[in-house]
Amino acid sequence: MSEYVSICEVGPRDGLQIAKTRMTTDDKIAWIDSLAAAGIPEIEVGSFVPPRVIPQLSDTPEIVARILAKNPCWVLQVLAPNLRGAQNAYNAGVHKIAMPISVSEGHSKANLNRTPADSIAMMRDVMGWMKEQDRHVPVIVGASTAFGCSIDGVVTTRQTVALCKGLVDAGVEHIMLADTVGYAHPAQVREVVRAVRSEIGPAVYGLHLHDTCGLGIANALAGLEEGIRAFDSCLAGLGGCPYAPGASGNVVTEDLVFMLESMGFTTGIDIPKLFEARALLHAGLPAEPLSGQLPKAGIPPTFRKAA
Amino acid sequence: MSEYVSICEVGPRDGLQIAKTRMTTDDKIAWIDSLAAAGIPEIEVGSFVPPRVIPQLSDTPEIVARILAKNPCWVLQVLAPNLRGAQNAYNAGVHKIAMPISVSEGHSKANLNRTPADSIAMMRDVMGWMKEQDRHVPVIVGASTAFGCSIDGVVTTRQTVALCKGLVDAGVEHIMLADTVGYAHPAQVREVVRAVRSEIGPAVYGLHLHDTCGLGIANALAGLEEGIRAFDSCLAGLGGCPYAPGASGNVVTEDLVFMLESMGFTTGIDIPKLFEARALLHAGLPAEPLSGQLPKAGIPPTFRKAA
Repeated sequence: MSEYVSICEVGPRDGLQIAKTRMTTDDKIAWIDSLAAAGIPEIEVGSFVPPRVIPQLSDTPEIVARILAKNPCWVLQVLAPNLRGAQNAYNAGVHKIAMPISVSEGHSKANLNRTPADSIAMMRDVMGWMKEQDRHVPVIVGASTAFGCSIDGVVTTRQTVALCKGLVDAGVEHIMLADTVGYAHPAQVREVVRAVRSEIGPAVYGLHLHDTCGLGIANALAGLEEGIRAFDSCLAGLGGCPYAPGASGNVVTEDLVFMLESMGFTTGIDIPKLFEARALLHAGLPAEPLSGQLPKAGIPPTFRKAA
Repeated sequence: MSEYVSICEVGPRDGLQIAKTRMTTDDKIAWIDSLAAAGIPEIEVGSFVPPRVIPQLSDTPEIVARILAKNPCWVLQVLAPNLRGAQNAYNAGVHKIAMPISVSEGHSKANLNRTPADSIAMMRDVMGWMKEQDRHVPVIVGASTAFGCSIDGVVTTRQTVALCKGLVDAGVEHIMLADTVGYAHPAQVREVVRAVRSEIGPAVYGLHLHDTCGLGIANALAGLEEGIRAFDSCLAGLGGCPYAPGASGNVVTEDLVFMLESMGFTTGIDIPKLFEARALLHAGLPAEPLSGQLPKAGIPPTFRKAA
């Protein structure tokens, strides 16, 4: 039996927050529907941040409401930067909440306007509040800049381990190690995954990777070989971080799914249907460059045939 | 001490043979000089094929002569498709000869107009002729379509092992496993490298990879972790095979060198100088799209600093 790898498509959130043009709410919903139709099991549809901070995502509450009204059979995730955002997301009825907590001081201050120590204290409040609610909504903390920071430069493995340990002590159950600016290399991915896991065990949930320096897919492979079975990715490799200068897009969903399925893992995702979802981007985001090699080449005739 | 990985830049050959525009001989020499100045230890500067077959490379004899006149301190390699080409290359004074031999029948007939069995017989003649010469010129056989073929589809590991075994029996000493059309995935790279090595041992020399489906760098990582220490690659990911429809460029030299050096391997290559060599392509090949993420992002501030 083939092993399952879980993909969370973050395009409608991470992919749009620094997009040159603004996608309409109707276009976003059509796109999200097409992603779901391709079999993507988890989709991050937006962010519960104040509209002035990221105007491109100001329609998140409407998107969440309209999609939940359709009773989706996939996991609807949103990002929330703080307790207030997490409460709003919970009250909106989302299935899962992602919360970014920076490992590096510089990124923490620029992106979240607080120190990593403040973030840990905040997560204690968030996890406490979540425990008091009737409905169980998993919170995934993204440990941002876990592999390097465009502001502070090197982030040591020790720093990342310490933040993750602090988060787990504060009640966090799932941590996504995030290469927010795309500086990681495969040996570092292996080292950090091992070091963090030896400290917090199965709370190491997955990897969020960017392809800034061309190593996104290779870093995913390194994580996969370390036992990681959950990845964030982005259709057409859209994305970036507004407070991480120079950061380019997320690891490309099409190429990542192709690698996983080629290697015999199961994702539940239909690649030709991913291409249909990608086609909607040409209309919805006309000014955005679309990355990814597989969509240009097409699926090779050898795909899923034994060698 | 850091382990050495040998890069052979195949841009001036593989990168130009299907280029939309034709690079002048002077531009090619300036480009090759800049690649050498970046510290690339081996450069494939052209192909000894009849000019009508690949007009873009018809100036190879002139390039070889002009470069050898400068006493280069790097390894000058050319491609040769047959005994005649290998003899011409030898007589031109090259340091190393690459010879492509297809694993699959379909690619063999389309690209070389003979069967793989014919090729093995031919290689016996080539290696015999080489042994009789005064000067030792290593011959690297590229086992083309070793991971799949755009004409025949699946190429089995058994087929690749059998061809490699036949080549070694015919006197071949170094085999480059080539993913000519870019269909390989990391698990397959591991499997094929292991299987071939268990049959022919250290005659497994290196990997020649394409990035058709976005897995080029991940495949290089898989090979690296199987002990491969020699890779072909191409500045800006130029390249393809005229007889492999749909094949896109080679694995990108800039991104590959960045991965290797980040992981602590030594290549002897200076990345900023690679970017200077890349800049020459804008003038020399104005119509060609240039791939590679690192050149767009720049070298991250964390590069070669301990994490």
